Amino acid sequence: MSSFDLAEHPHRRYNPLSGEWVLVSPHRAKRPWQGQQEEASREQRPEYDPSCYLCPTNERANGEHNPAYKSTYIFENDFGALRADTPTGSFAKGGLLRAESERGICKVICFSPRHDLTLPEMEVGDIRKVVDLWQQEYEELGKLDFIKHVQIFENKGSVMGSSNPHPHGQIWAQSTVPGGPAREAAQQREYYEREGRSLLQDYLAVEQEEKERILFENEHFAALVPFWAVWPFETMLIPKRHMQHIGQMGEEEKDAFAEALKRLTGAYDQVFNVSFPYSSGIHQSPTDGQGHPEWHLHMHFYPPLLRSASVKKFMVGYEMMGDPQRDITPETSAARLRDLILS
Amino acid sequence: MSSFDLAEHPHRRYNPLSGEWVLVSPHRAKRPWQGQQEEASREQRPEYDPSCYLCPTNERANGEHNPAYKSTYIFENDFGALRADTPTGSFAKGGLLRAESERGICKVICFSPRHDLTLPEMEVGDIRKVVDLWQQEYEELGKLDFIKHVQIFENKGSVMGSSNPHPHGQIWAQSTVPGGPAREAAQQREYYEREGRSLLQDYLAVEQEEKERILFENEHFAALVPFWAVWPFETMLIPKRHMQHIGQMGEEEKDAFAEALKRLTGAYDQVFNVSFPYSSGIHQSPTDGQGHPEWHLHMHFYPPLLRSASVKKFMVGYEMMGDPQRDITPETSAARLRDLILS
Ligand SMILES: O=P(O)(O)O[C@H]1O[C@H](CO)[C@@H](O)[C@H](O)[C@H]1O
Ligand SMILES: O=P(O)(O)O[C@H]1O[C@H](CO)[C@@H](O)[C@H](O)[C@H]1O
Repeated sequence: MSSFDLAEHPHRRYNPLSGEWVLVSPHRAKRPWQGQQEEASREQRPEYDPSCYLCPTNERANGEHNPAYKSTYIFENDFGALRADTPTGSFAKGGLLRAESERGICKVICFSPRHDLTLPEMEVGDIRKVVDLWQQEYEELGKLDFIKHVQIFENKGSVMGSSNPHPHGQIWAQSTVPGGPAREAAQQREYYEREGRSLLQDYLAVEQEEKERILFENEHFAALVPFWAVWPFETMLIPKRHMQHIGQMGEEEKDAFAEALKRLTGAYDQVFNVSFPYSSGIHQSPTDGQGHPEWHLHMHFYPPLLRSASVKKFMVGYEMMGDPQRDITPETSAARLRDLILS
Repeated sequence: MSSFDLAEHPHRRYNPLSGEWVLVSPHRAKRPWQGQQEEASREQRPEYDPSCYLCPTNERANGEHNPAYKSTYIFENDFGALRADTPTGSFAKGGLLRAESERGICKVICFSPRHDLTLPEMEVGDIRKVVDLWQQEYEELGKLDFIKHVQIFENKGSVMGSSNPHPHGQIWAQSTVPGGPAREAAQQREYYEREGRSLLQDYLAVEQEEKERILFENEHFAALVPFWAVWPFETMLIPKRHMQHIGQMGEEEKDAFAEALKRLTGAYDQVFNVSFPYSSGIHQSPTDGQGHPEWHLHMHFYPPLLRSASVKKFMVGYEMMGDPQRDITPETSAARLRDLILS
């Protein structure tokens, strides 16, 4: 019997950030596909679309008109999943039925007035304005008494459930810390208390030594495919400085963040020569007024495409019941992405 | 301010089986949809398809021919994510990079020789043969020394990543217990040790009293929309008797299971008048030779459709970063499904 090889044999990898495992099946990348194909969105969009409710000056569902905005534009989601005026309360029955009311604010951020420009197509200086807005919103929402967590994210592409192609992201701010960041907080806290250092700072140091999964670095950020990546081309952006939240980012760091965003998303668009769909989001410390030295801000990118612009990875059956599973290894994806990074 | 109402106000519900939360936004069911539409699969399939690698007598990818099978047919997946011949081994670097080799067996079960019949379209007696096979496989795979967990599941429909429309399910059996059942085991164990009873038996009793989320019962099974359901029409089948695994199911119970499967999947097909896609799977005790009195077997159904045959719920951005989220309440879905149950 040959000896165990990560590039060849089925194995599980541990995610120290979430405490979960992923099943990796490297030998399986060659299976045939007779299943569903997505339509690749190569469509050309106009700079301005009169029927788009996110374009400048157009009317939204609630009857309001967008201003003639020139860079970014933010407003409260007309159909937010969370609302500030939710009455406090809870429901319980027999210990097994439990619900708690949840207050929050959902916002939509248009990245640019241009209907046709996605992040990688924008200038670094314009992406920087998006970063500035994220910072400002994290701080302002976080100051509200009833907001303990601010989730900044983007769904890009119709295959990721985005209901409007005008490039935009969202912020859902709420009274409790959701499960994802709560799990990461527990893992980071345990590590920080044990080692006295940030889990992600130590992890980044290991990857900088290994090199295999690093995509690129600039002065303040590194982009890599995590050793425990679940999605075929999943990546993470990590600031080199151990910072808890975006409020702590300085001017140069924000420039570097914007530059890294452009390079990473630009590489994605070249993998299958199509505007690459993904969900991305920033994980950072809660806005509960505590210090949280264990937290190390980072940004996740979860793109669904697997083999081509039209064949995506399905997280279904086994993945829903058991654990996430992937075929192509993180090392193979990293090599492929690294080749596409604009230097 | 009005008082907190589960049918009206955003809230979080606790899943005592997994320990996780779901965000429910009842007011949001009316938002407009300009996003992706799936193609509804109303296509008529032939009874036998010469190009299908699952139909009787046809050739599979590895060159073997299927027998002229008359009821169910099971074989090892030619492109299994797990393999029995994987060498043992592990990989570790700096404490933060950790991998373990994983041995296992992946099988495919054709539910019937008919290319055109899904579970709800089969006779109860033929579904019973599928149940028999599940039982037999759980027991036989479970007897293997290196198999500690047997995951039985089905991906139905191309939107659920099924790579072949011939009705079939899968079994992934492996050396370790995956995350989903491991989390449920921990929650059930904690409850069992504290209360001395099965969590799901107590939960079922509460729902039988409440009635609101029960879809139907037969002598040995109940079908319900869990209070903490994530997917718009998510359901669960629960045996009334506290049993750990399918090996313990008696003849009458297996008949009742088959009948419940037909009724539940038949109701699904009527929701949007289309063959309803879903992933389903049986959670039960591991095959590690221990008793596991805490375990109560159950079957999950996770269907993705939301508003119509072509608009599904996307578990993306916020859901990937934070917590799963739903619009329509479990109670509304239950009422809708209950109306469609064949009595
Ligand atoms: O084995 P299949 O049906 O080709 O594959 C399908 O089910 C598997 C198990 O849920 C998933 O890992 C695949 O992504 C999905 O396409
Ligand atoms: O608000 P949108 O973009 O219409 O909605 C999209 O993002 C939300 C947050 O991830 C999801 O809950 C929706 O399912 C998805 O369609």
